[in-house]
Amino acid sequence: MIEFDGFKPVYGGICASRGFTAGALRAGIKESSQKDDLAMIYCVKPCTAAAVYTKNVVKGAPITVTQKHLQDNTAQAVIVNSGNANTCNANGIEIAELMCELTAENLKVNKEDVIVASTGVIGQKLSPQPFQKYIPLLAVSLSEVGSIGACKAMMTTDTRVKEFAFEFTLDGKTCNIGGISKGSGMINPKMATLLVFITTDVKISVEMLNKALQEANRNSYSRVNIDGDTSTNDMACVMASGLAGNEEITAENENYEIFLNALCAVMCNLARETARDGEGATKLIECMVANAPSEEAAALISKSVVSSSLVKAAVFAADANWGRILMAMGNAGAAFDPLKVSVKIMSENGIVTFCEDGVAVDYSEEKAHNVLSADEVTIMIDLHEPDAENNQSIAWGCDLTYDYVKINAEYRT
Amino acid sequence: MIEFDGFKPVYGGICASRGFTAGALRAGIKESSQKDDLAMIYCVKPCTAAAVYTKNVVKGAPITVTQKHLQDNTAQAVIVNSGNANTCNANGIEIAELMCELTAENLKVNKEDVIVASTGVIGQKLSPQPFQKYIPLLAVSLSEVGSIGACKAMMTTDTRVKEFAFEFTLDGKTCNIGGISKGSGMINPKMATLLVFITTDVKISVEMLNKALQEANRNSYSRVNIDGDTSTNDMACVMASGLAGNEEITAENENYEIFLNALCAVMCNLARETARDGEGATKLIECMVANAPSEEAAALISKSVVSSSLVKAAVFAADANWGRILMAMGNAGAAFDPLKVSVKIMSENGIVTFCEDGVAVDYSEEKAHNVLSADEVTIMIDLHEPDAENNQSIAWGCDLTYDYVKINAEYRT
Repeated sequence: MIEFDGFKPVYGGICASRGFTAGALRAGIKESSQKDDLAMIYCVKPCTAAAVYTKNVVKGAPITVTQKHLQDNTAQAVIVNSGNANTCNANGIEIAELMCELTAENLKVNKEDVIVASTGVIGQKLSPQPFQKYIPLLAVSLSEVGSIGACKAMMTTDTRVKEFAFEFTLDGKTCNIGGISKGSGMINPKMATLLVFITTDVKISVEMLNKALQEANRNSYSRVNIDGDTSTNDMACVMASGLAGNEEITAENENYEIFLNALCAVMCNLARETARDGEGATKLIECMVANAPSEEAAALISKSVVSSSLVKAAVFAADANWGRILMAMGNAGAAFDPLKVSVKIMSENGIVTFCEDGVAVDYSEEKAHNVLSADEVTIMIDLHEPDAENNQSIAWGCDLTYDYVKINAEYRT
Repeated sequence: MIEFDGFKPVYGGICASRGFTAGALRAGIKESSQKDDLAMIYCVKPCTAAAVYTKNVVKGAPITVTQKHLQDNTAQAVIVNSGNANTCNANGIEIAELMCELTAENLKVNKEDVIVASTGVIGQKLSPQPFQKYIPLLAVSLSEVGSIGACKAMMTTDTRVKEFAFEFTLDGKTCNIGGISKGSGMINPKMATLLVFITTDVKISVEMLNKALQEANRNSYSRVNIDGDTSTNDMACVMASGLAGNEEITAENENYEIFLNALCAVMCNLARETARDGEGATKLIECMVANAPSEEAAALISKSVVSSSLVKAAVFAADANWGRILMAMGNAGAAFDPLKVSVKIMSENGIVTFCEDGVAVDYSEEKAHNVLSADEVTIMIDLHEPDAENNQSIAWGCDLTYDYVKINAEYRT
């Protein structure tokens, strides 16, 4: 976990924030699956809400419906299913609206205050029956310990629950923020995300909530790549109940900075765990770039390194084929001086330097193999631009394994 | 093979063009390998020459040296090694210059008229000794049947010789054009190429040769993606001896169009075979996009589809997970109307329609599996823009297999 000063990790995930309950059950949306596939999140009062969406031109029906419902930046409930993406279906919008209607009816909230999301295979027919039968049952089973269940019900090829919550203080009031997310393949969020639901009891204006979400997204999910493919159904939304009792945040003051850090604490940790849980992955790859010509260059280069198939395959084999790191840096679309580059790789097993001033240095293959054999591998790149301390970035990815191919050659069946 | 009207396939590869000989031998550049690793191409007279290079910010030393030598657009010989990319080496430029010097000395040509290229692992020390010992031997062993040998000596993880030659007529004179190329991984040529050497006996001005190469490259290698990684050492160059006796092409006239088509015939076929020979590939994937909003949109969309890891894994499994095609189209960075899209997949085993007007249509899974089980699979996308007959594109890629991971997890060892 990445620790952030002043934020205390707490239990409860999205239910750690005052006012929120959640739940999940098996609705049989994908008949062949025995896992829970329908989740609901509810708040006792309407929340200020903000979201970011996939930049894919082909958008799932739930994205279209949620965008409409969040025009007023108010939400009180979330309904989400796995097992079917409800994308490229002739009656997709109809079904997404029905999911919201049934949720609203059973929770006694406004239909326009329901956020809807779906994840699974694209272009598969989706029956309304599971929703008609199970949303009423789900609505009466929500609880304050429902966060993990809701997270599990969203999972497709995910193997790990991705859930974080932190406690912090604003105006002397204890505040909470928590989040859950799913996503393991088709992941290269472009200024958007996967399925990410975040709750907080902080009181904050629509403008400041939107601003904080954009900023936190830029430093978290936008820095993750698993396979270069951007889903049609990506969505990250944050709901703020305002029940913490702090004075409303309406400007970029000190309290805004604290909230932004809290949001980053949740989103960066979720994003990092998403990379670790990439389809078929055996290792988390972290790439840190320092002293770049610009912050944008640092971001592009760190992302390009964790995105390279060849870097990923080399890390899988714990093979110190570091020339591929230079190759991936050069493809980032950012200018830098190759003759100033140094590259090191670090893990719990030690640290090895491969390249200084852009040329090879001697190293022990045995030690390099050992460093690369750890579960978490950090590639440290210094571009040695003068006066560039702030031009840095971290990006997260995972190794490319036989199991990635296996999972994606067999996913539908 | 893609056939082009009016061009007759002939034997001989790069030696089919008048004036050219080639050869290869084993210089032991990578000690553990038993294959030939040093190739040479020679023309009896200085040629008009043009080249395109990798857009990677990190460039191999041979790229830097060749760019310098081709400033005057004249070349008479090529020296190329596999087994070491001569990139990120402290003495890289020195060694690339030495390779040219030794070639020039032994062929009695000008040192500045030698093109040099290297391919293999990046950042590995490279000794001058193999070149000092073997370039003199190679220079006296060139022959008119040396094209295949030269091609084989460039190969790294390639499994197929990629060599084409065509005969055509200009001003009543028989002309020839031939090419060889290597490349199987680290392949996503960005307006540049891999290692591609093309010879012709056509007489053509520097300006027209450069123009034709840029244009042919845009329609051939720029449409290939194997793994999204762009090499540091990509290079395509064409040498024109002028020995065919045609009137020199100095303007974009009818003869220029014929020559451009001949160059496209060689380069498109080499590019397509490169995709088929992608690391670990079992299938060639061809994506044809028709009636797009623009030619650029067609090119972006076709390239995005063959580049998607998820599309590639599905084709490997012959699994008709066509939603991934829509997903990849939406990520191409091109605007289009998702509700006008139709998608079909065709092979020697038949044709199946998956999607019309952007929504799923019924199809037989058994038939789809059968169509996708062929060695060559064509994904046909129609965007149904009105008056857009010319807004079309073809791109080439290959499936993503266990062997891609295996090859790249073991490449260095």
